[in-house]
Amino acid sequence: MAISTLGLDADDTLWHSENHFAVTEQRFGDLVRPWMDGEEAARRLLERERANLRLFGYGVKGFTLSMIETAIEASGGAIPNDAVQQIIEWGKEMMNHPVELLPGVEETFDALEGEYRLLLITKGDLFHQETKIAESGLAERFERIEILSEKSPDQYRRVLNRCETAPSEFVMVGNSLRSDVLPAVDIGAHGVHIPYGILWGHEKVEDELDHSTYHRLESFAQLPQLLTRLA
Amino acid sequence: MAISTLGLDADDTLWHSENHFAVTEQRFGDLVRPWMDGEEAARRLLERERANLRLFGYGVKGFTLSMIETAIEASGGAIPNDAVQQIIEWGKEMMNHPVELLPGVEETFDALEGEYRLLLITKGDLFHQETKIAESGLAERFERIEILSEKSPDQYRRVLNRCETAPSEFVMVGNSLRSDVLPAVDIGAHGVHIPYGILWGHEKVEDELDHSTYHRLESFAQLPQLLTRLA
Repeated sequence: MAISTLGLDADDTLWHSENHFAVTEQRFGDLVRPWMDGEEAARRLLERERANLRLFGYGVKGFTLSMIETAIEASGGAIPNDAVQQIIEWGKEMMNHPVELLPGVEETFDALEGEYRLLLITKGDLFHQETKIAESGLAERFERIEILSEKSPDQYRRVLNRCETAPSEFVMVGNSLRSDVLPAVDIGAHGVHIPYGILWGHEKVEDELDHSTYHRLESFAQLPQLLTRLA
Repeated sequence: MAISTLGLDADDTLWHSENHFAVTEQRFGDLVRPWMDGEEAARRLLERERANLRLFGYGVKGFTLSMIETAIEASGGAIPNDAVQQIIEWGKEMMNHPVELLPGVEETFDALEGEYRLLLITKGDLFHQETKIAESGLAERFERIEILSEKSPDQYRRVLNRCETAPSEFVMVGNSLRSDVLPAVDIGAHGVHIPYGILWGHEKVEDELDHSTYHRLESFAQLPQLLTRLA
C-alpha cells in the first residue's frame, strides 16, 4: 500500500530537547560535587527519575522534583535551601526555553507538504508540549496533533484508528527506537529512526535490533528521499 | 435544538480532587507555622501558584514545586531538607490517591447513558488525568475524552467541531464557573454549574453573574431532571 501518512515525533526529532536536560544534569553534577562525583550523581538521578515515572510521568516538572529528591538524599540532608531553589530555577528555565528547530526541518516540511498527511505524535507534559508546538511555528503544518502520556503499540493503533489509516500506509519518524520506532513497527507500520546526539538513559534499548525491520537516517532532511524510495 | 451532547468536567464534578489540595494546604500551613500563620501561608502559596501557572500549567507537580518555593521564601531559607522531602511526599500521595467518585455519579451515568453522547472534558496534567480516568471505571462511558491544557471558548469550540456538534445542542457541566460554565455559555452552549464544597482561589470569579445565562444544581444526581426540563 502506498504511504499516505507520516507520524513525526517532536522532542529531539523536530527540535532540540535532550540537550537542555544534559546541560541541567551537568549543572546538577556540579551542585552535588561536595558529596559525590558526576557519574554517581547521574546514575542516582536516573534511578530516581525511573522510580518516579510511575507517579509523575514524563517531563520537566517531574525531572525537577527528582533532582531535588536526589540532591537531598545524596547530601544526607545537607543541601542548602538556595541550592534547592536553584534546581527549581533550572526547571523553570527549561520550561521557558525557546524552541530551536533542528537543521533542515523547515525545508523538509516544505518538501513533504501536500504529499503526505502529517501527524505530530509526541509524549510527555501536555502543557509544555503545547507551548513548544505553538512556539515552533509548525502547528499549522499538521493535520492532527496527538500528545500521549506514553507511546505504546496500543496508543499508535488508537491514533491510526482515529484518522482511519492502515498501519501499512503509515510511517513513524523519531529519535527514540523505544518510543517511536519499535511500537510502530510492532503494529505493522514503517519505522524511521533518526538518532539525536544524546539519548536519555530511560529510552535506551539494550540489544541491537534487527535493522531490516526499520530504517535509519542521519538527518531529518533525508526523509523525503527515503519516502520516495519506499513508494 | 434538542440537546444531544453533554460535556462533563472531571475533578470536583465526578470525583473528589480539591479536598486533597485543601488537606495538603493545611499540612503546609502547619509546616511553615514557625515563620507565619496559616492565612499568610495560604495567601503566599496561591500567589506563587498563580505566578508559576504560566510556566507549569495546572496540576499536582506544579503545585508541589510552588509549595517548596513558598516554604523556602517564607522561612528565609531556613526550611530543613526533611521538610522539603515531606512536601514532595505529599505531592506523591496526591498523585497516587485513589479516585473517589462523588455521591450519585454512577447512578446518574446509568440514567444518562443512551440518551446523550457523553464527553469528558477536563484540564490539567495529562498523565495524572489519564491515570484518574482509568481508575474511575468511567472511561468506557464516554464517547470522547478531551484533556485540555486550558478551558477557553476557543478550546470548547474546537472540541465541538471535532465531534460535529452545534453549541446549541451541547451542555457543559462542571464545578467551576470560570472554566466549565462561562466559556461554554460564551460560545452559545448551555452551562450547568454544580459547586463543590471547596473552590481553588484561582478559579474564583469576582462578580456575581447573571444567573439567567446558566443553570445551577446542588448535586450531579439532579442532572437528568434538568436535562428533561431543557428538552
